[in-house]
Amino acid sequence: MNAPQSRFQPRDPGYAERVRESFGRQKAMRHIGARLRAVGPGWSEVELPHREELTQQKGFLHGGIIGMIADNACGYAAFSLMPAGASPLTVEYKINILAPGRGHTYVAEGVVLRSGRTLSVTRAEVYAESAAGRVHVASMQQTVLMLADTPDTPE
Amino acid sequence: MNAPQSRFQPRDPGYAERVRESFGRQKAMRHIGARLRAVGPGWSEVELPHREELTQQKGFLHGGIIGMIADNACGYAAFSLMPAGASPLTVEYKINILAPGRGHTYVAEGVVLRSGRTLSVTRAEVYAESAAGRVHVASMQQTVLMLADTPDTPE
Amino acid sequence: MNAPQSRFQPRDPGYAERVRESFGRQKAMRHIGARLRAVGPGWSEVELPHREELTQQKGFLHGGIIGMIADNACGYAAFSLMPAGASPLTVEYKINILAPGRGHTYVAEGVVLRSGRTLSVTRAEVYAESAAGRVHVASMQQTVLMLADTPDTPE
Amino acid sequence: MNAPQSRFQPRDPGYAERVRESFGRQKAMRHIGARLRAVGPGWSEVELPHREELTQQKGFLHGGIIGMIADNACGYAAFSLMPAGASPLTVEYKINILAPGRGHTYVAEGVVLRSGRTLSVTRAEVYAESAAGRVHVASMQQTVLMLADTPDTPE
Repeated sequence: MNAPQSRFQPRDPGYAERVRESFGRQKAMRHIGARLRAVGPGWSEVELPHREELTQQKGFLHGGIIGMIADNACGYAAFSLMPAGASPLTVEYKINILAPGRGHTYVAEGVVLRSGRTLSVTRAEVYAESAAGRVHVASMQQTVLMLADTPDTPE
Repeated sequence: MNAPQSRFQPRDPGYAERVRESFGRQKAMRHIGARLRAVGPGWSEVELPHREELTQQKGFLHGGIIGMIADNACGYAAFSLMPAGASPLTVEYKINILAPGRGHTYVAEGVVLRSGRTLSVTRAEVYAESAAGRVHVASMQQTVLMLADTPDTPE
Repeated sequence: MNAPQSRFQPRDPGYAERVRESFGRQKAMRHIGARLRAVGPGWSEVELPHREELTQQKGFLHGGIIGMIADNACGYAAFSLMPAGASPLTVEYKINILAPGRGHTYVAEGVVLRSGRTLSVTRAEVYAESAAGRVHVASMQQTVLMLADTPDTPE
Repeated sequence: MNAPQSRFQPRDPGYAERVRESFGRQKAMRHIGARLRAVGPGWSEVELPHREELTQQKGFLHGGIIGMIADNACGYAAFSLMPAGASPLTVEYKINILAPGRGHTYVAEGVVLRSGRTLSVTRAEVYAESAAGRVHVASMQQTVLMLADTPDTPE
């Protein structure tokens, strides 16, 4: 991934740890077996090994699961640029499925398009990796709300 | 749910069984514990009991899981109107999260806006049900492609 | 239009005049010949007579023009519920074109799904009216940001 | 614009003329003063000089106008890869407004993400150019349907 590392300056130098810690608290990500592969200022990568139990009726990765990892890659891309003490909230996202999800591993790469005071706009690409190579399976565009002075932990 | 039952005539009288059978083949739906509550011509309802393992970092139902059940409710609403022998493919969807997902049960209600020869357009509302009542947590708008003469089963 | 008039209470009793006045300042709406047909708490209707000069390459109403009136009907639905002194900003919208735009008049009907402190979520349906009747040509889902204490006038 | 010129091979060697000719038949584009600046295999650029008559209530370029030129840049990017005799139909699009539209000129750059037999998926970025530089004002993601053997002209 050619992440735009130089474009953004994180406001919180401890952003990477903060992102990893938040990701680790997502039981849904653990339930499907996803992990945070990498994070930088304004981008993140979420990785998911293929599992039979995540498939739809034709045996491909379920489109909703593709959406889940893309939503996460986008959200943590945005969160990486937020100040300590703030928390992210997905406002909305739109995803196009470009190809059936068949691979041994799926990777969602999220990047920030715009990091605003209240709203961030992000994008993610999802790829399926297999012996045959890398296939682009989905593209997402997402909006994230920053809740200032709101801890990113259970109430 | 006030489903527009009279608006659409199913092309396949056996549509309900076809939808239930396809839903049953979705391992991802089983993995999260969702079930098809009801289906009619041009609409469907997917139900999901709350589970700790489906939550995000703040303890609410993960937005991606909300997207999964909404995507399914939309897709099966569209599939109910397809002829036997065709299969549905999610082209894209857009979802707005309206409120945090906290309830004992979540219900996604999908309806068809337009059922075309090639493309269908659908919508879903997701509600969280709890002792306190019913809260509208998400709204989706989706596009589905009909693959004619393509069985809805693994290749 | 069966607008959900009873669902929302306007925070500003002078909302209708505020909406009409703001609509009147939109030169782009005047340029295409659109007018605000009606407004209520949480909904609005924008009307556009067909004009040759608004068509695309096949002679139908341009999809971007359909988007313009839907975006407006949504935005003013949201604006009707904002307090005096605030202004609306379109964050994003998604539109599905359901049928070619051919009619003597087009009507976009916008309604609020959720009116929040910071963000509102809205929907619009666009219809083409002709001698042959009324055809549903588009469906939009939109997000609007409320800028508190920001006049809705040129800086 | 760094268009991915090498990624796609046009199926119709006369694609550029076909795109220009179709754009020229869009009365709506003429009405707002937009022109096709450039086209290549899988990409196109639409340019719009600022006009007072295209503004919204605060004096910025109307969001619907931003959507119009982005929709066009996307659609013609897709059309450039279609065979002669086919015509494009916008299925849906989603746009995020990233910044107010204020400039002397606006440019929408559309690129194809996926060019399928039936459906294409595209993206556009819209920039406002002014003495102060170039500002990214909007991002679109769009789906286009190819109508095979359907002339791109009035019926």
